[in-house]
Amino acid sequence: MIRVLLVHDECLVRSVLAEWLRREPDLAVFDASWRAAPGRVRTLRPEVCAADLDCADAVGIPPLADLRGTGGPAPGLLVLAHAGRPGLLKRAAEAGALGYVDKEGSPQRLVSAIREVARGRRFVDDSLGFGFLKAAEMPLTRRELSVLSLAAEGASVAEIAGSLHLSHGTVRNYMAAITRKTGARNRIDAIRISQGEGWL
Amino acid sequence: MIRVLLVHDECLVRSVLAEWLRREPDLAVFDASWRAAPGRVRTLRPEVCAADLDCADAVGIPPLADLRGTGGPAPGLLVLAHAGRPGLLKRAAEAGALGYVDKEGSPQRLVSAIREVARGRRFVDDSLGFGFLKAAEMPLTRRELSVLSLAAEGASVAEIAGSLHLSHGTVRNYMAAITRKTGARNRIDAIRISQGEGWL
Repeated sequence: MIRVLLVHDECLVRSVLAEWLRREPDLAVFDASWRAAPGRVRTLRPEVCAADLDCADAVGIPPLADLRGTGGPAPGLLVLAHAGRPGLLKRAAEAGALGYVDKEGSPQRLVSAIREVARGRRFVDDSLGFGFLKAAEMPLTRRELSVLSLAAEGASVAEIAGSLHLSHGTVRNYMAAITRKTGARNRIDAIRISQGEGWL
Repeated sequence: MIRVLLVHDECLVRSVLAEWLRREPDLAVFDASWRAAPGRVRTLRPEVCAADLDCADAVGIPPLADLRGTGGPAPGLLVLAHAGRPGLLKRAAEAGALGYVDKEGSPQRLVSAIREVARGRRFVDDSLGFGFLKAAEMPLTRRELSVLSLAAEGASVAEIAGSLHLSHGTVRNYMAAITRKTGARNRIDAIRISQGEGWL
């Protein structure tokens, strides 16, 4: 039996998906919200974590690293993803995800992906290819992303400067670089574009 | 048989939910993305449209009015909603939705809601109550929302003024009022708050 922890922030969808997966005789399926997932990983020690990349928390960035558990082998990470949010695909790749299932595809792909990831094999839906290409082209540096994340939370230039130990002028320079590199018209546009791509 | 059109923008989730609903002997279940839904309403003439309020289009506001169809009785509208996005609940109420199912609840509630809405009865999950309360307290006027929506798309003050046939000063006054009324620190914060509440 493959022990699978399904991570999704909508209880209704999660319940139905888990029930659907339980029809497979080789899967033992558990489910959790993103908030509860790290605790469940520790107690259940699943072979596979199948996690929806949409996360309901304030920032909307799923804490993928928290699914690794502590001690013992980490579960194989599989993500339910969307080609239109390349930043999240990039985060999943950085977190060592083995499986990438397109939410625009058939649910049967999820079952195949779980079995592959349980064997330690990579599984990538072809339809996510364009998303990976865009992820590779993500124009912002890690520092620029930190500045933009704070701005997106409503922080002023002074607050960003204080948080990151930078001068006001440096923060303004970063914001100008971000606006230029994202092809945005202004800061708000840069935030909109970056959120749409899943970089923030 | 109750003809149900399930509207959801994630194909994988939509397929599994539709399959799950089809186990009910009194339901004939069809499914569509938001983009395809208006056409399906016209051809299928469902008694109930069960629509996820999360919509993948650029603005993220579901075109609820397009689910009414043309000619003949409109389908009963049921929405899958989240108490944390009161603006979307308000839009659903304005569009005449009869059913409100909390995505944080049990999927069985969805089945009950479909049957109630098919009989022309209202169905509201208790857990959405706080969301409705917050929706009633939405502080922005329709005009302020238009200004903020354009700003959130990255438009400059000059572009907003041009689109809405207002002076630059008037747009600045609206933005100041919006920032004050949402309790925001600045424009970006006002957009963040309003998007989080589902007003934009």
